[in-house]
Amino acid sequence: MKKYFTLLPLLLMALVGHGQQKSDSLFIKQISDEIMRHGKAYDLLYELTKKIGGRLAGSPQQQNAVIWGKRNLEALGADKVFLQACKTPNWKRGGNDFAAIVGVNGQARMQPLAALALGNSLGSNGLLEAEVIALSSMEELEKRQTEIKGKIVYFHSVFDPTKIQTFRAYGESGVFRRSGASRAAKYGAVGILIHSLSTAPDNAPHTGSMVYDEAYPKIPAIALGPHDAQELYELAKKGTVRAQMQTYGYFLPDADEHNVVAELKGSEFPDQYITLGGHLDSWDVNEGAHDDGAGIVQTMEVLRVLKALNYKPKHTIRFVLFANEENGMRGGNEYANQAKLKQENHLFALESDEGGFTPRSIGISASKESFAKFQAWTPLLKPYGSEVTLGGGGADINPLAAVNPSIVLAGLVPDSQRYFDLHHAKTDVFENVNKRELHLGAVNMAAIVYLIDQYGVNP
Amino acid sequence: MKKYFTLLPLLLMALVGHGQQKSDSLFIKQISDEIMRHGKAYDLLYELTKKIGGRLAGSPQQQNAVIWGKRNLEALGADKVFLQACKTPNWKRGGNDFAAIVGVNGQARMQPLAALALGNSLGSNGLLEAEVIALSSMEELEKRQTEIKGKIVYFHSVFDPTKIQTFRAYGESGVFRRSGASRAAKYGAVGILIHSLSTAPDNAPHTGSMVYDEAYPKIPAIALGPHDAQELYELAKKGTVRAQMQTYGYFLPDADEHNVVAELKGSEFPDQYITLGGHLDSWDVNEGAHDDGAGIVQTMEVLRVLKALNYKPKHTIRFVLFANEENGMRGGNEYANQAKLKQENHLFALESDEGGFTPRSIGISASKESFAKFQAWTPLLKPYGSEVTLGGGGADINPLAAVNPSIVLAGLVPDSQRYFDLHHAKTDVFENVNKRELHLGAVNMAAIVYLIDQYGVNP
Repeated sequence: MKKYFTLLPLLLMALVGHGQQKSDSLFIKQISDEIMRHGKAYDLLYELTKKIGGRLAGSPQQQNAVIWGKRNLEALGADKVFLQACKTPNWKRGGNDFAAIVGVNGQARMQPLAALALGNSLGSNGLLEAEVIALSSMEELEKRQTEIKGKIVYFHSVFDPTKIQTFRAYGESGVFRRSGASRAAKYGAVGILIHSLSTAPDNAPHTGSMVYDEAYPKIPAIALGPHDAQELYELAKKGTVRAQMQTYGYFLPDADEHNVVAELKGSEFPDQYITLGGHLDSWDVNEGAHDDGAGIVQTMEVLRVLKALNYKPKHTIRFVLFANEENGMRGGNEYANQAKLKQENHLFALESDEGGFTPRSIGISASKESFAKFQAWTPLLKPYGSEVTLGGGGADINPLAAVNPSIVLAGLVPDSQRYFDLHHAKTDVFENVNKRELHLGAVNMAAIVYLIDQYGVNP
Repeated sequence: MKKYFTLLPLLLMALVGHGQQKSDSLFIKQISDEIMRHGKAYDLLYELTKKIGGRLAGSPQQQNAVIWGKRNLEALGADKVFLQACKTPNWKRGGNDFAAIVGVNGQARMQPLAALALGNSLGSNGLLEAEVIALSSMEELEKRQTEIKGKIVYFHSVFDPTKIQTFRAYGESGVFRRSGASRAAKYGAVGILIHSLSTAPDNAPHTGSMVYDEAYPKIPAIALGPHDAQELYELAKKGTVRAQMQTYGYFLPDADEHNVVAELKGSEFPDQYITLGGHLDSWDVNEGAHDDGAGIVQTMEVLRVLKALNYKPKHTIRFVLFANEENGMRGGNEYANQAKLKQENHLFALESDEGGFTPRSIGISASKESFAKFQAWTPLLKPYGSEVTLGGGGADINPLAAVNPSIVLAGLVPDSQRYFDLHHAKTDVFENVNKRELHLGAVNMAAIVYLIDQYGVNP
């Protein structure tokens, strides 16, 4: 008999465990059915992209988006919605960026190039003309540093197409966009052109954030359309190319922006927070549909579905529309700052900022022991095209780790093949978002939020 | 010592196994790098869709596509390319299909509806006008059979949006398109309208194949755009709706068409065949880009990459552009017929006919014992976003099972969220195919063909 008594608790645990998985699977099916039938994320995205439009921090559109977000989160039935004020950069493009090849091997020509100034870059103060030096790596820049002075540096910052996870290629090529200008200015360059960080077989230029090193002159910086960039590269490798560039970027004084925060109050652990969100701001040249309108409306959809299913969370769930990811990170930093000031206990945070594409996984950063718990939820996500994978977070939630080192950070990981076709390009518009893909992302976000709320983050 | 001797073979096997997996993984990486860097599938798809266009069996475009396919397969370095003649249906749409609501509750109106006649349906012989009866299931048709006579039956054949695998929803709703006309004609209906088999949030009608039951009158059949269909359904459920329809479909005598077959001769087992393919024909109203231009150019890309890597197959590999999937299945049947006549030994066949979207798996139909072998290859496909799953095949290769019951059938399984947005609609055009997604499908196809060629299909 002893044997049986010993086994009984284990047996009960197994049964309870099985029952739990079953009821979880049923609830997640309800989440999915509700979202796939009645989801509002796509309609909300239409409003955000087509009625409000591009939402660069400091723009009237972004102010408008804050009002829109607050109103909609209230209408969706949050227990409370509030704004968190923060100062953000207030960069203006200032004009229609221009770049052109004007001479090849001493022969004049006028060949305009598809061009967008990099975000946060300063204007050229009139038309700039110089010889182009084409470089394909930072190593080459260092090696040829004596040839840079007075020239326009062209960085051939192409994606490695063999990286199946496109974010890895972006990580590698991103350095040219972020710090290429100052790296070149250090050796006397008068401007830089880069190959857009793009996977698309089109010629759309892609803007994106850059930062000047205060030690060097703040030279103008432009991203070229991929086809034009390739042509310039080939011409400049073979011969002497002269180019012109003109940009108009400038900063107004920092803007007053806001994170929009909605809450569903926890019934058992009201002082323990689960956060999910995306960023409300976007670049000025597009509608910010995938980046990150998708994450915004998915976040709102999770609130909608939990209310529609009359779910009463144990922990307090925060739905956050962050103010300023693109060119300043001020929204996420302020959210963490407020968490610190108020000594909030943040258990878990989830970000959606990799586009509204078919979800492939929920990536979770955790120790090996904790991760086993999350990984065991993979069968619950599989029917919705997803699984739990190791490693995750996001630019807006990562600052929370400095407030609560034990916080578990996670990110929605959509399929990444199409993201850098349109990321920061004018092609990031509503028409390029697929309704089912977008909604299926929200299904997986709601599922993981539900599981964390039910079972916490402790192993 | 005995112990060690006993273990040695196992140890060696494990080492060899490990070494094999490693060299396989390296070769598959070479396949992927070559395709992601230099793949030609996307460019070939541009030619097929933009220069040739829609390719309904019997059309000059389809004849043209056969010439294009043969020429390109030869240029890609196949050992031999030949045509397999077959007769196909030769259906013509005959005109601009028309449907309209012309009266609601006795009030006249003229509200045209987005309409496409179903493929293989016959013309209405002039303008048809009748009262509409709206039905949402075949059960309802049977229950209300006495009310059908003289009416236009509208079938509310909507997709179940909660099916995450959209092919399952298609399977359920497909019955209305395939056999709705004759089922309704049996009770005296004069025409049918159906809700397009669509997941798209747009109003594009989707055509597709239907078959008449010879026992009943061959009444006209139209698919309506989803928004218009929904409106008609709601009006007809609440009141009396009169509708008009006019179609022009007719058949010419069967056409002379061809499968295009390319071969790489096997070095060890030249008489054992591995087949991969897609179908060259499409509907008349679009470019057949995803359906199935994608499968065609992926098949060609597998040939290209094997040649580029100088791969010498052990088995004979056949690359087949099937002649007629959409409205007759004559291509696949003829390929199986020839295999039977020539007593060919077919080991394995792989089809790509679910669109050129990001691959999720290679689905393989096999017994449990055989499947374990294939499933063990999942780690080799994982880096390319895929895995091996149970169950697979395709309309063009399935007839081979009647020739060789032990054949292993497989299908490329891409992500299915977007497929039925454009399947058989005018929106199935080149612009809606993503280059990286398309090429990644070819990577997975080439990988599985390589593994089958190396290790056969026996457990």
